[in-house]
Amino acid sequence: LKNTILSLSLSLSLYIYIYIYIYIYIYRYQEYDLVVSSVTTKVKGVAQTNTADFGEVVWDVVDYSPNEEKNSFFVATNFIVTKKQKQGKCPEVPHYGTLCRTDNDCKKGLWDIRSHGVQTGVCVKFDVTTKTCEVSAWCPIENTKKPPRPALLTSAENFTVLIKNNIRFPAFNFIRRNILPEVDGNYLKKCIYNQRTDPYCPIFRLGDVVQGARENFADIAVEGGVIGIQINWDCDLNRFFNSCLPKYSFRRLDEKESNRTLYPGLNFRFARYYTENGVESRTLYKAFGIRFDVMVFGKAGKFSIVQLIIYIGSTLSYYALTTVFIDWLIGTSCYSKESQQVYSERKYESVQDRQEVKHTHTHNASLHLHPGLLLV
Amino acid sequence: LKNTILSLSLSLSLYIYIYIYIYIYIYRYQEYDLVVSSVTTKVKGVAQTNTADFGEVVWDVVDYSPNEEKNSFFVATNFIVTKKQKQGKCPEVPHYGTLCRTDNDCKKGLWDIRSHGVQTGVCVKFDVTTKTCEVSAWCPIENTKKPPRPALLTSAENFTVLIKNNIRFPAFNFIRRNILPEVDGNYLKKCIYNQRTDPYCPIFRLGDVVQGARENFADIAVEGGVIGIQINWDCDLNRFFNSCLPKYSFRRLDEKESNRTLYPGLNFRFARYYTENGVESRTLYKAFGIRFDVMVFGKAGKFSIVQLIIYIGSTLSYYALTTVFIDWLIGTSCYSKESQQVYSERKYESVQDRQEVKHTHTHNASLHLHPGLLLV
Amino acid sequence: LKNTILSLSLSLSLYIYIYIYIYIYIYRYQEYDLVVSSVTTKVKGVAQTNTADFGEVVWDVVDYSPNEEKNSFFVATNFIVTKKQKQGKCPEVPHYGTLCRTDNDCKKGLWDIRSHGVQTGVCVKFDVTTKTCEVSAWCPIENTKKPPRPALLTSAENFTVLIKNNIRFPAFNFIRRNILPEVDGNYLKKCIYNQRTDPYCPIFRLGDVVQGARENFADIAVEGGVIGIQINWDCDLNRFFNSCLPKYSFRRLDEKESNRTLYPGLNFRFARYYTENGVESRTLYKAFGIRFDVMVFGKAGKFSIVQLIIYIGSTLSYYALTTVFIDWLIGTSCYSKESQQVYSERKYESVQDRQEVKHTHTHNASLHLHPGLLLV
Repeated sequence: LKNTILSLSLSLSLYIYIYIYIYIYIYRYQEYDLVVSSVTTKVKGVAQTNTADFGEVVWDVVDYSPNEEKNSFFVATNFIVTKKQKQGKCPEVPHYGTLCRTDNDCKKGLWDIRSHGVQTGVCVKFDVTTKTCEVSAWCPIENTKKPPRPALLTSAENFTVLIKNNIRFPAFNFIRRNILPEVDGNYLKKCIYNQRTDPYCPIFRLGDVVQGARENFADIAVEGGVIGIQINWDCDLNRFFNSCLPKYSFRRLDEKESNRTLYPGLNFRFARYYTENGVESRTLYKAFGIRFDVMVFGKAGKFSIVQLIIYIGSTLSYYALTTVFIDWLIGTSCYSKESQQVYSERKYESVQDRQEVKHTHTHNASLHLHPGLLLV
Repeated sequence: LKNTILSLSLSLSLYIYIYIYIYIYIYRYQEYDLVVSSVTTKVKGVAQTNTADFGEVVWDVVDYSPNEEKNSFFVATNFIVTKKQKQGKCPEVPHYGTLCRTDNDCKKGLWDIRSHGVQTGVCVKFDVTTKTCEVSAWCPIENTKKPPRPALLTSAENFTVLIKNNIRFPAFNFIRRNILPEVDGNYLKKCIYNQRTDPYCPIFRLGDVVQGARENFADIAVEGGVIGIQINWDCDLNRFFNSCLPKYSFRRLDEKESNRTLYPGLNFRFARYYTENGVESRTLYKAFGIRFDVMVFGKAGKFSIVQLIIYIGSTLSYYALTTVFIDWLIGTSCYSKESQQVYSERKYESVQDRQEVKHTHTHNASLHLHPGLLLV
Repeated sequence: LKNTILSLSLSLSLYIYIYIYIYIYIYRYQEYDLVVSSVTTKVKGVAQTNTADFGEVVWDVVDYSPNEEKNSFFVATNFIVTKKQKQGKCPEVPHYGTLCRTDNDCKKGLWDIRSHGVQTGVCVKFDVTTKTCEVSAWCPIENTKKPPRPALLTSAENFTVLIKNNIRFPAFNFIRRNILPEVDGNYLKKCIYNQRTDPYCPIFRLGDVVQGARENFADIAVEGGVIGIQINWDCDLNRFFNSCLPKYSFRRLDEKESNRTLYPGLNFRFARYYTENGVESRTLYKAFGIRFDVMVFGKAGKFSIVQLIIYIGSTLSYYALTTVFIDWLIGTSCYSKESQQVYSERKYESVQDRQEVKHTHTHNASLHLHPGLLLV
């Protein structure tokens, strides 16, 4: 009889252990909802460059951040500028085109992926020593291949960005904003995010963001790259709403260690178009820079009775298993053969006893399924 | 014997009740697939403004919607325009810069986040009463801080947008479009979405969208905001394909009730660049407006035998539980102690009876776990 | 006794069969993580057009791809160009405006969705035979409705795009790039993606992409469309990391078969703004083209002990079910009524036997995990 109780309590406690382990680990009987998010960003800062070609130039946000996108903003940190391009004919740049000696080396209408224009079939002087095929293109052709080093707008490190993020968990009709209502307005106007001292300030210094992603701003500024700003909302709506707070983290999303000869960094070209005396011309900008992708993650959990029912159901069978396991354990390893016999005998005795009394053995059998539920 | 049957039927019906409850609530043995969506938008409408500064100006879609984005479009509703900015030196606007008396108050090269340029170190007159530090910047500097009220393009309320949304459930190889094939072409050319009368028209009046989000267009037009256009595809592919229809809903995504001094609304700056006599100038636009985010949600369900097997498996254990529960209920609360004894006696009697006949007791035990599975 | 063993082994094997079936089908005890992805694209190629209106023009990437977007790029393949538009008053184009005979037919301030400007209330000659209401608008108004056929930039078929895709599975801290490290650098500079011969080259010829989506480039180039470039990362992190490779597929996302009169294709307008003698003018481009949406899918699986426990738990109950089912099968269909009796008798005999020996029936019951499933 003692052994029966031992078996019973052992199996019960093992079951409870497994149950609680899984429960805590997965927190399964929560109903979860994923976040619906809206992001707007606003970059601030000016930079001054002083180059031989263009003299002193001031760059403001309209100049260095030509594209506005949902969930993403681009800050140009380096430029190759080609001024006064006009539609016309000019020698192709050697690296991208065909070197030639006579017109026979060139073929009218030919172009390949790397060329800046369509060949006219004429061989012309590129410089004193080199002749290349002439192309119809925007002339003069962008010549420099490598971006300036150090980057022109290294001071973009000090620019700031305000990120406004509104989230919603539709299933729970729960709304929240990364500009927390309890935070003072004057503080928000001057604060700069810092993981330790100012973790809820929505204004970020770009240099800090890049540093948070374990990159060097001066390095990444030269060829560009992609940095992820992750906002993580992990909300437990069971307790207090105040436990739903944003957590920021930063990460470089493109590959830094890539072979540098193979398309490193991030750059794109844009142009400003002009007309002078009816002729269209443009200034071509090859902008190297950092694209910041704001990525909002989040889930909210709330107690769900249905999930609980299903979860208990799927783990209930384990109780039976543990019972059998414990029985087997007692029957083989823990006791000597003799004690085992004693155990067996006792078991049958107890059964016999009951049978003698009222033939209660049927319930005894069921006992081994859910002893906790034993009735007789 | 009667009680056994009572117990049996009670537990069975409780089990079935729980089973059906969960089944209906979760619809669990469906195989689900999430939507893959493609959205294109096209805004239409013109607006005329008549201001003291610029006279009569007509704005068409190219002017007020400078950015085209996937899943999102922006309609500018208010502008602060600064014409003929050139790179140069000019006094900083008081609010953003340093007030000064002599050149010593200014520091060459200094700038902070709020300034429009880099200080030259000279103190100059801003207006009759005020002196501020001179900055290298795009001059003249944008001066107005607050957007015009009422908004310049309040009539954007009457603009329309055509939203084309193609969806696909890859797992089911199912394709659908929000321009329904059964709807008449001439109707589509003239219709305007209305939740009641025209719920499947893909053309939306912006004023209706904003109203659907419970906002006032004239209000939101001043400082801008973000409105979500949600397209919900909840498709049951078990029945008829025609049950897969889009449902539109609208919602303001940014926070309206925010402290208005703290970065309210949505605005961004863009510029048009010109050259005159070789000197580059630009017209700076600070555009306040509404960004409409088209968000496509959707899932499609189809019967899945595997999900059904798993689901039944996880709830099967409940049958045992309910059986025991019913037994316990009969044994304690429903009957008096006497009747309980009678019940118990009868139980054993019935067992005894069978034993007398053929010793069927073992199977009788099983009866209380899965009566449906009863063998003897 | 034989039958008992038969029943036992049959039910066990059925259970194992169901178990393995579900296991393989769903691969359920994996822990899954969804992909976090970053995409950058770079289009290359030039095209030359020769039209009566504009003569020879060369288009490079800045001209035909005015918008850069995250996860998406647009290549214009057809244009309707309206040069030298100025703010002014001019007759509305007949299709979009009101035909009129006298000024009374026009109403000052009137505009509708399709009009290009706001009516001035005057009726003017549009051409020799037609009079339309005058509007305040950007004049002259864009006149052509249908795009040129064939498309101006059909040679965009030969343009290429480099797609850089970096992925990350945060839960497993696993990073990967579609430019595979083991692939040779010189190969990458010259390769073009081909499903069979070059499945891991990240450079795609646009014509191949469109063909992969089973579309004709010359057709789609006229009115535009949306093509999805799907990158599928299905990674099994249990085995070798090298099994995590990208798989590309292409698909048209918008509907090709749509009624062509109802907003077919994809187009949008943009403008280049100029000033001449202080008067602002613009060149309006209605660009038809293909938007390529890069869609990254992916999940990675890794063995998870918790998922395994839950999964086994939910299927465990089936063992009971199969046992009973087999018993029933043996008891009814497989044997004649006589043999059934024999089986039944033997069953009870065996129980009796054991009872006689040591009354071992209780243990025997528990051994079978679910007494209902009891074999003896």
